[in-house]
Amino acid sequence: MQLPDSLAVANEKKILLVVLDGLGGLPVDGLTELETAATPNLDRLAVRSSLGLHVPVGLGITPGSGPAHLALFGYDPLKYQVGRGVLEALGVGLDIGPQDLCARANFATIGKDGLLLDRRAGRISTDRCTELCARLRQAIPMLGDVEVIVRPGREHRFVVVFRCAELASGLSDSDPQHEGVAPNEVRAENPAAEKSARAANAFIRECARVLADEPKANFVLLRGLDRPPRIPSMRERFKLKPACIASYPMYRGLARLVGMDVVEAGNSWETELAALHEQMRNYDFLFLHLKETDKAGEDGDFEAKVELIERFDEEVVPRLLRMNFDVLCITGDHSTPTRLRRHSWHSVPFLLCSPYVRFAGLKEEFSEAACARGVYGCQTPSVLLMNLLLAHSLKLEKFGA
Amino acid sequence: MQLPDSLAVANEKKILLVVLDGLGGLPVDGLTELETAATPNLDRLAVRSSLGLHVPVGLGITPGSGPAHLALFGYDPLKYQVGRGVLEALGVGLDIGPQDLCARANFATIGKDGLLLDRRAGRISTDRCTELCARLRQAIPMLGDVEVIVRPGREHRFVVVFRCAELASGLSDSDPQHEGVAPNEVRAENPAAEKSARAANAFIRECARVLADEPKANFVLLRGLDRPPRIPSMRERFKLKPACIASYPMYRGLARLVGMDVVEAGNSWETELAALHEQMRNYDFLFLHLKETDKAGEDGDFEAKVELIERFDEEVVPRLLRMNFDVLCITGDHSTPTRLRRHSWHSVPFLLCSPYVRFAGLKEEFSEAACARGVYGCQTPSVLLMNLLLAHSLKLEKFGA
Repeated sequence: MQLPDSLAVANEKKILLVVLDGLGGLPVDGLTELETAATPNLDRLAVRSSLGLHVPVGLGITPGSGPAHLALFGYDPLKYQVGRGVLEALGVGLDIGPQDLCARANFATIGKDGLLLDRRAGRISTDRCTELCARLRQAIPMLGDVEVIVRPGREHRFVVVFRCAELASGLSDSDPQHEGVAPNEVRAENPAAEKSARAANAFIRECARVLADEPKANFVLLRGLDRPPRIPSMRERFKLKPACIASYPMYRGLARLVGMDVVEAGNSWETELAALHEQMRNYDFLFLHLKETDKAGEDGDFEAKVELIERFDEEVVPRLLRMNFDVLCITGDHSTPTRLRRHSWHSVPFLLCSPYVRFAGLKEEFSEAACARGVYGCQTPSVLLMNLLLAHSLKLEKFGA
Repeated sequence: MQLPDSLAVANEKKILLVVLDGLGGLPVDGLTELETAATPNLDRLAVRSSLGLHVPVGLGITPGSGPAHLALFGYDPLKYQVGRGVLEALGVGLDIGPQDLCARANFATIGKDGLLLDRRAGRISTDRCTELCARLRQAIPMLGDVEVIVRPGREHRFVVVFRCAELASGLSDSDPQHEGVAPNEVRAENPAAEKSARAANAFIRECARVLADEPKANFVLLRGLDRPPRIPSMRERFKLKPACIASYPMYRGLARLVGMDVVEAGNSWETELAALHEQMRNYDFLFLHLKETDKAGEDGDFEAKVELIERFDEEVVPRLLRMNFDVLCITGDHSTPTRLRRHSWHSVPFLLCSPYVRFAGLKEEFSEAACARGVYGCQTPSVLLMNLLLAHSLKLEKFGA
């Protein structure tokens, strides 16, 4: 479907998309986190908003952060798939371009017989990982004409990016996923990826040489080697001037993938709100990402998630309203019920406020239950939310005569 | 979309899908059959379930039993079409493989001038049909290298299956659908079906010879000649170990088409429940089919359908609950309103119970009206119910990173 791209027009109206990561939940004692939280401001806002539940990828499908956000940005998550290595590279804050081949890497322990003893090098500390990455960075800045970028992650994990115009996707993992066997060579699955495979294998050999005297972390394993998908920008597609305010690198990276400017906004809700207020004159689409609700969900901390939603209601919502965006959407990227302690397949509540919304005619509140009865019902594909944001800001022309 | 197949993983959790055939109804004096029935157990269960209405094929489309069940099993009913001949063969209890060419057959009366006098041979009795089929079976066990299988149906109807590795689909009917004309030759619509056409025409000639002295049933007509579609099994697609408990042959056959084991379970709800309890240790997906509600619907007997639903609520539901499945779904395959006396296009109420469901927050009951207000709303495609069953049993991995 080439809609809404072919219909998009620029105008002065300003859209704010607020994502409370992992907002959706599951009931404990009959009520979800959102339903339990006292949210007078959101509830008042819900009365003059259209409500619904959106489905990130499909009924029953649990989305990762990549597909969930791409869908919210109006990109079909089945068409534009972001590989694990790319997401990790975005997650450590690397500015990844379409030419960059990204990989997840582990420090590992290999025996003198060439067999893997420990795929995680005894889970070395994050500090040790940082030191070792610095050593690799110094020792292997380039491999021929391929620039090598190494960044530490947590414990034994790190990220490596190979940067060169001639690299390609289509590579197997070197990580055999088992111990007691030899690591694999990285193999090219197509001729265009031959050079990439040579670079990856050369990197692995060089690492083994540099790390030879290490007691535990004397080898590295690569997996998820991939380049970012080629994605037309939101400017091209929707004629928007978009900006991202997010404290977590992965979400900044995902926003950059679709061509958003990433605004420096500090790491607190306070500084982010200040930046939002400051920047709304420069952009007509602002994406504000708040991570904390998802973390409370993954920690299984029902009370913490409730308190975060209440704090959002009390501290953030009134200030957002005072900024007077033409279209305001408050939602999540997916559900992270504290009872599951992980992302889930459940649909996500959303609230859409503009002068041009319909109401369901119920005494509203912002909750999963109210959203299920909302005018957008319980199965709006997340990828179509962008249509609604554009439509309510009058940025879509009529289709057909 | 290769979802959910690519995400399916096996685990120990057990799913029960209960199909009350033709469950959905239409109101008489304001309430449907399900709404009229006193169902305290289902209503209590609805309070802790997610509710919705599913749509078997598409809005306004009345499904046959084949597409309705394939959709419930997670198979796109537009992609996997089961021909009428195949369905009839399954319906008389034949174990049909992908090589079997199946046809619906009628005994008919033909005049000495070669024109059809009666396409139904005066609607001979079922007993007479059984005798004639035995005669054909004895007289025509093979046609060259093609095995011929004949099974009686009701009145003038029977089923014939041609079994040989070289047969193919793509055949016209011999039944001209009119009397006073000559029957047609079966024609191959593609070269691969030539041998099939020869076998079908040879069968018709042989039947005419064997039946020449019959006063009424002196000829046979064939239609709906087809092989079953090639369908990947539920094991392959969903990593399930599935079993079917159904007393009617057609549903057992449909289950076999998607690779379910068919469990011997007698012909009463009592023996079927015993078999379910016995077999749940051996399988992780159990499909329990109860036909009676559909028959009451086709008989136009509102009271009988209400009573069957009440009997199900009283006798069956408590026992199902005691079996403690991880996911329990109670639904129909389609609607059979007694006012229409046939399948209809109306959506079908479903109830999904697991520890991971959301509620609509209403005083619930299991009814069409409550399901329309449920968290899955009123237009869930039936084919996506399987996604929900898999998701709620934690058998689907996350999509994307």
